[in-house]
Amino acid sequence: MRFFSDNAAPVAPAVMAALAAVNHVDTAYDGDAASRALDARLGEVFEAPVTVFWVATGTAANALALAAICPPHRGIVCHRDAHIQNDEGGAPEFYTHGAKLLLADGPGAKLDPAGVAARIDGIPGDVHRVQPAALSITNATEYGLVYTPAEVAALGDFARERGLRLHMDGARFANALAHLGCTPADLTWRGGVDVLSLGFVKNGGMSAEALVFFDPALAAGTAERRKRGGHLLSKGRYLAAQIHALLEDDLWLANARAANAGATRIAAAAGARLIYPVEANEVFLALAPAEAAHLRGQGFDFYDWAAGEARFVVSWHQPATETAALAAAIAGL
Amino acid sequence: MRFFSDNAAPVAPAVMAALAAVNHVDTAYDGDAASRALDARLGEVFEAPVTVFWVATGTAANALALAAICPPHRGIVCHRDAHIQNDEGGAPEFYTHGAKLLLADGPGAKLDPAGVAARIDGIPGDVHRVQPAALSITNATEYGLVYTPAEVAALGDFARERGLRLHMDGARFANALAHLGCTPADLTWRGGVDVLSLGFVKNGGMSAEALVFFDPALAAGTAERRKRGGHLLSKGRYLAAQIHALLEDDLWLANARAANAGATRIAAAAGARLIYPVEANEVFLALAPAEAAHLRGQGFDFYDWAAGEARFVVSWHQPATETAALAAAIAGL
Amino acid sequence: MRFFSDNAAPVAPAVMAALAAVNHVDTAYDGDAASRALDARLGEVFEAPVTVFWVATGTAANALALAAICPPHRGIVCHRDAHIQNDEGGAPEFYTHGAKLLLADGPGAKLDPAGVAARIDGIPGDVHRVQPAALSITNATEYGLVYTPAEVAALGDFARERGLRLHMDGARFANALAHLGCTPADLTWRGGVDVLSLGFVKNGGMSAEALVFFDPALAAGTAERRKRGGHLLSKGRYLAAQIHALLEDDLWLANARAANAGATRIAAAAGARLIYPVEANEVFLALAPAEAAHLRGQGFDFYDWAAGEARFVVSWHQPATETAALAAAIAGL
Amino acid sequence: MRFFSDNAAPVAPAVMAALAAVNHVDTAYDGDAASRALDARLGEVFEAPVTVFWVATGTAANALALAAICPPHRGIVCHRDAHIQNDEGGAPEFYTHGAKLLLADGPGAKLDPAGVAARIDGIPGDVHRVQPAALSITNATEYGLVYTPAEVAALGDFARERGLRLHMDGARFANALAHLGCTPADLTWRGGVDVLSLGFVKNGGMSAEALVFFDPALAAGTAERRKRGGHLLSKGRYLAAQIHALLEDDLWLANARAANAGATRIAAAAGARLIYPVEANEVFLALAPAEAAHLRGQGFDFYDWAAGEARFVVSWHQPATETAALAAAIAGL
Repeated sequence: MRFFSDNAAPVAPAVMAALAAVNHVDTAYDGDAASRALDARLGEVFEAPVTVFWVATGTAANALALAAICPPHRGIVCHRDAHIQNDEGGAPEFYTHGAKLLLADGPGAKLDPAGVAARIDGIPGDVHRVQPAALSITNATEYGLVYTPAEVAALGDFARERGLRLHMDGARFANALAHLGCTPADLTWRGGVDVLSLGFVKNGGMSAEALVFFDPALAAGTAERRKRGGHLLSKGRYLAAQIHALLEDDLWLANARAANAGATRIAAAAGARLIYPVEANEVFLALAPAEAAHLRGQGFDFYDWAAGEARFVVSWHQPATETAALAAAIAGL
Repeated sequence: MRFFSDNAAPVAPAVMAALAAVNHVDTAYDGDAASRALDARLGEVFEAPVTVFWVATGTAANALALAAICPPHRGIVCHRDAHIQNDEGGAPEFYTHGAKLLLADGPGAKLDPAGVAARIDGIPGDVHRVQPAALSITNATEYGLVYTPAEVAALGDFARERGLRLHMDGARFANALAHLGCTPADLTWRGGVDVLSLGFVKNGGMSAEALVFFDPALAAGTAERRKRGGHLLSKGRYLAAQIHALLEDDLWLANARAANAGATRIAAAAGARLIYPVEANEVFLALAPAEAAHLRGQGFDFYDWAAGEARFVVSWHQPATETAALAAAIAGL
Repeated sequence: MRFFSDNAAPVAPAVMAALAAVNHVDTAYDGDAASRALDARLGEVFEAPVTVFWVATGTAANALALAAICPPHRGIVCHRDAHIQNDEGGAPEFYTHGAKLLLADGPGAKLDPAGVAARIDGIPGDVHRVQPAALSITNATEYGLVYTPAEVAALGDFARERGLRLHMDGARFANALAHLGCTPADLTWRGGVDVLSLGFVKNGGMSAEALVFFDPALAAGTAERRKRGGHLLSKGRYLAAQIHALLEDDLWLANARAANAGATRIAAAAGARLIYPVEANEVFLALAPAEAAHLRGQGFDFYDWAAGEARFVVSWHQPATETAALAAAIAGL
Repeated sequence: MRFFSDNAAPVAPAVMAALAAVNHVDTAYDGDAASRALDARLGEVFEAPVTVFWVATGTAANALALAAICPPHRGIVCHRDAHIQNDEGGAPEFYTHGAKLLLADGPGAKLDPAGVAARIDGIPGDVHRVQPAALSITNATEYGLVYTPAEVAALGDFARERGLRLHMDGARFANALAHLGCTPADLTWRGGVDVLSLGFVKNGGMSAEALVFFDPALAAGTAERRKRGGHLLSKGRYLAAQIHALLEDDLWLANARAANAGATRIAAAAGARLIYPVEANEVFLALAPAEAAHLRGQGFDFYDWAAGEARFVVSWHQPATETAALAAAIAGL
């Protein structure tokens, strides 16, 4: 029973069906019907004009987003525990040609204006110091916490005041939305988000993420950078089709709700072990080595996050029997 | 009837079936069974130990290959008409951090030792000049010509003498193999090729190419660069599965033979219009604007290569009725 | 007698005196009085508001200029024989993060609109091809030819039409000016030049070149890039002082005139050996190997440019006795 | 009276004389006699074979050093307050093509093995994380503290164990040496230092620093990178001459001793205000805003380091009257 991550789950049947449905001759790259329909389709979802690029990985989406909002000689503020800092092998530095990540702090990998200010307000405004150009936040965060629309808006206001562009890493954006019940617009551009990495792979997709610009002017150069990064697939329709399939009838939200519900079930059994409140599909527990070994002995696979801490992630596809079994096993420790 | 390129054809049924066959929970990234089996599988194909990386595009495969064999401050010799020079939006420069492409000449986009020597032998060996580190050839070439094993070996010998690493862009390697009837080994490492970009997308795949190193030491750093380029898909098994499916029962060669045969049929009807001999699946014809318009009026889509020249590409999937119709239409001009 | 290049000549006495004159405590970097006076001083020279950065080498000036006018994913048109292509070890690619140099042709390393159009007008306007963003010309050229104000203006008009920024590599700008007798303004911004690398090192300086922006908006980011390239010297006043000294009483022009005159004297003796008209301080001669050996035997040091061709460069400091001796030796061949 | 920094002091008379002494025609770049003598001269100083490159700035020296020991996809451990992290405008990221600085902690900007281990030992060894390749320390540190030979050796041993290369930023290496009275060898390669940025500019030079490799193999590529960075001056003899002049009769050490002595004098007057022990030429004092204003009112210029803290730096050239006046003023607060 794999609770190691949600990144290795199967692909949703509707996505597989969508791949079959576009399996005919069509225009190459992003000239096909499915690709050309993405701006309009995501424009409906976000209630605003958007410019969308499909890419195959969240790493590519994040790195291209950051390259669009930060020149090589400036910096991007993010949380010390952000995925772009710790888990992307330096992709942000590669795509931005060496911009510096400026690490800020906050509980649960969440930032607030004060935390960002604490990192950047002491930077003298001269050429010797790398000046910040952007702020990147993750929703839901690496610890499964969710920024509310108000929290996003506070950061959006702060970013605008400081002349920073605002990026949201939404690898688990659907999980955040499902938790909040708000609209996609409320959680993004209405709060000042300039560009969103919108994840589908962890949520039933195979290999498609959407890079969503809320300001078309900001997207300039991204088509070229995507090509230059080797991310313009010649058969792009198979990526676009995945996104359409997951948006259809809000399958993305249904999948996210299922994953969140599983995590909530586990959290309910965890009691005082729970390190963070569960707001998405991740559960962080205090777990002694012997306890971890005991769970593994029962067939549960999970991630040793830090000494005495373990991470369990529930995927969109996780059978209820597995989450129930895990909840029972944790309760029985 | 699309003869514009082979890059927008459908995906082979065996590939679609293979995607379904791996649609279950497995280890993420390239830790799954299908990905882990790639080295051995391609080792059989090439009769030698190889180190293989899947990527989603030929551009990524080429750029990662070049980054492995050329440092930022040196250069890569290639043909003036090479895909890496003209069609990849600067991806080689991006992944190598600014290495310079040194352009050599030769008929039909083919290079030989004399042509390469003509480009590099006059370069003074000092720090003011970018020194060559690698040679990149394309087989089949941009004009559908094929390097024979002897021609590859001549370039391999030359490269070794000059201290250059040898890369082969094999976006249409299967077409070259199908034409020659030789072994994959004869066309690569036996002739001195260090690293091969092995294409599957134009040949029935959806989104999987293989980057094949014949010298494992040369592959050092490529796993990190792939991640850093955003090309390490979390559900890599769906890429590995495509490659396995196309290698199974030599489907890749069957597909390439079908495409080549279609091109040969068209060439037979072209007579004196033929600009290059047809050795793969591309046909270049002298075509006056009125003639081009006439063909387009009959429903044929193709590429205006240069003034008075047109390119027709036959895909693995092209119905014989379409190639027959095109041959007839050309004969009737 | 060194005619190998003008890049190893001594430093002018006025420059040495200027170094001594600023040898006191002052503000670091470019906050000192001499540095702060550069914009105004060069504004007088160019009869226009300019934004100026000192740097220690022409390579740095050129590379920073190009980074200001070309993003990483686009290209810079230059002559096939341009210094930025052949003699700077890939510095333009480094500072632009991998922009591509697009090589055009023209006699004497000079470009004209037709030659540039021939290189770029066939480039399809899609993301697969690197699109040109800038044009770079050298005045005087690598072969010692000079662009007139009219020729510059023709290229300036062309560049504006095509949406290209125009850079002039003026390592020997003073020599061109001295030849033409026109104003610095006529040879630059009045003809559409956006940014000029203005050389002083070959002309009596020690280690100071000026990067001159005619459009202040275009200079944005250059201060940061200069620092990031390690080119912001902490004792910048010693660079600024060199520039002031060479501009004082038009010493830069006097030095250039002296060098040009020496070259003219040699050219007069060369007769039919002369490959290019001498318009600056370089002389290219047809010279058989035995003749070259003969001259070397007499103590003349020069550059073997190509088979049967030799380059002689006269420096600002070259004694008239040396140029007379060389002229006589050539006449006597 | 400037105590703001030692980076704006005059140039030593011996250096000015040395510039005059090489003011004649010589070979360009680093082919002149003075440049060619550097390896041997510094080999004497360090009692070992060394490969030396002059550059014009400490930023260039550091960035080139780091590029030689860390590939783009790996990381460099340094102190959170290191100059390479905070004061070089991202030059390390530029020259390494985006390597990541991994920030470690320790009092007084000094690192020890435990502090470095705390930063890197938790990094999982996979491609998702940027793996460390190098360690960079500063001697004397940003706070004027000095690593002893034993402390360097402890870090050298640690680095070797962890497979890290060791760089020393020696912008104030002479001050450290003068404080310790040990040999240059003891403070560098005998303790495991692979490459040293050896500063002269803050110590009486005009524009010359030395990049010193203790392992010639490690220097491979540096000549090319120096050129590519625009740091190969055509009249390099004026840089080499500065270094020779400062080494002559140990002028560099005499200058450092003078600066250190001045700082010691100030420290003696500072009593409990002293934040760090004074081991080089920097003095950090607790200073209330009113006190700072009071000192400034008396004509002392210095740096507001942090709230309630001020930095005073004594240069090689600082008149004893100035340090005495400052000491008295501080004592009188």
